[in-house]
Amino acid sequence: MIFTVQIKVMPLKDLLDPQGKAVMGGLQNLGLQNILDVRIGKHIDLQIEADTKELAIAKAEEAAKKLLANPVMEVYEITIS
Amino acid sequence: MIFTVQIKVMPLKDLLDPQGKAVMGGLQNLGLQNILDVRIGKHIDLQIEADTKELAIAKAEEAAKKLLANPVMEVYEITIS
Repeated sequence: MIFTVQIKVMPLKDLLDPQGKAVMGGLQNLGLQNILDVRIGKHIDLQIEADTKELAIAKAEEAAKKLLANPVMEVYEITIS
Repeated sequence: MIFTVQIKVMPLKDLLDPQGKAVMGGLQNLGLQNILDVRIGKHIDLQIEADTKELAIAKAEEAAKKLLANPVMEVYEITIS
């Protein structure tokens, strides 16, 4: 079966997110008020062939750990649909 | 009230996603088989101060249209929690 697994990779909460800060400045320059904070991360969609949902999640977990997320600076979250 | 609005920005389905293709190659080189496709986009968390949920979503929609997503190459999806 083919599963679509989504991985959200975000900068750690305690870390400065310069890309987010830049976008926040941009939004303010465009006249958008009341935006208090912006944080930007990655969203990754994987198409994984596996026998069960659990195996697909395990594979995504492995991909996130080995390549997609840097645990020093980022957290990841896996969802499957 | 402060709302957390999430915007997912992904490359259009019909478009080639070179970043995703590169990551797919990387995963195969690491020995991860059975990953059929990888697509990479952005995930943006906004903290928006607004009176109602609807106003917060409208503000996020405006931000997405004006700055965060390029409609020629990307689609966006807004969720609120």
